[in-house]
Amino acid sequence: MTMESTETLPRTDAPARPPHSLIASDRVEGTAVRRSEGKKIGTIERLMIDKLSGHVAYAILSFGGILGMGQKHLPVPWSRMQYSPALEAYEINLTDEELAKAPSYAADKEFDWGDRKRETEIHKYYGARTYWGAY
Amino acid sequence: MTMESTETLPRTDAPARPPHSLIASDRVEGTAVRRSEGKKIGTIERLMIDKLSGHVAYAILSFGGILGMGQKHLPVPWSRMQYSPALEAYEINLTDEELAKAPSYAADKEFDWGDRKRETEIHKYYGARTYWGAY
Repeated sequence: MTMESTETLPRTDAPARPPHSLIASDRVEGTAVRRSEGKKIGTIERLMIDKLSGHVAYAILSFGGILGMGQKHLPVPWSRMQYSPALEAYEINLTDEELAKAPSYAADKEFDWGDRKRETEIHKYYGARTYWGAY
Repeated sequence: MTMESTETLPRTDAPARPPHSLIASDRVEGTAVRRSEGKKIGTIERLMIDKLSGHVAYAILSFGGILGMGQKHLPVPWSRMQYSPALEAYEINLTDEELAKAPSYAADKEFDWGDRKRETEIHKYYGARTYWGAY
């Protein structure tokens, strides 16, 4: 348990080239979001970061006018966003109906609610654990 | 312990207006980094996010040519970045000498090391706990 101990780094030199585990915020911004079959449903506008914990809380999805949703932004729990190298996009299977019913806010408003009750609704809608440790 | 339990939201309606706890990634990007006395030492270029945990791992600092450091980027553990409303900047007290000696990489290279050994050096340099739970 000393600082010199290597116990905290058990597998550092196991793989010849470790998998990249970091991604740049400005690379995520602007990335497409698609269903598994390839249909584009939106674009990641930005990430919302919880200042206290340093966790990425949400990806904010914007839309190119589908379903009359051009004026809405959808906060999706980051834990539900999975990057697919095959699609070259984040993959999430939400139907048009599910997108239309999802918690959203006006695109010209800022999303910084700090409102656990509304945030809990988002996480329940997506069946995702909250980033602050509650469900 | 049921889903309907309100135990997970103990203080939701305590403050009339809860403090904002979320910040947008594209708002952090481009924000100045200053010492407590106000001297600007750099700008946050982007954030590096750990894909596995969803944690913000580093703020990447760029420089306007001070100390001949225009071609270098510095990854600073996110836990060391504290926003100061008074400074309208992230506040970190690093001397010119400390900045010159800090772990860095060439600005024209990508930072996605996935190399725990090099990352551990960064965290030790800044006296910050690693985002993957080791020191």
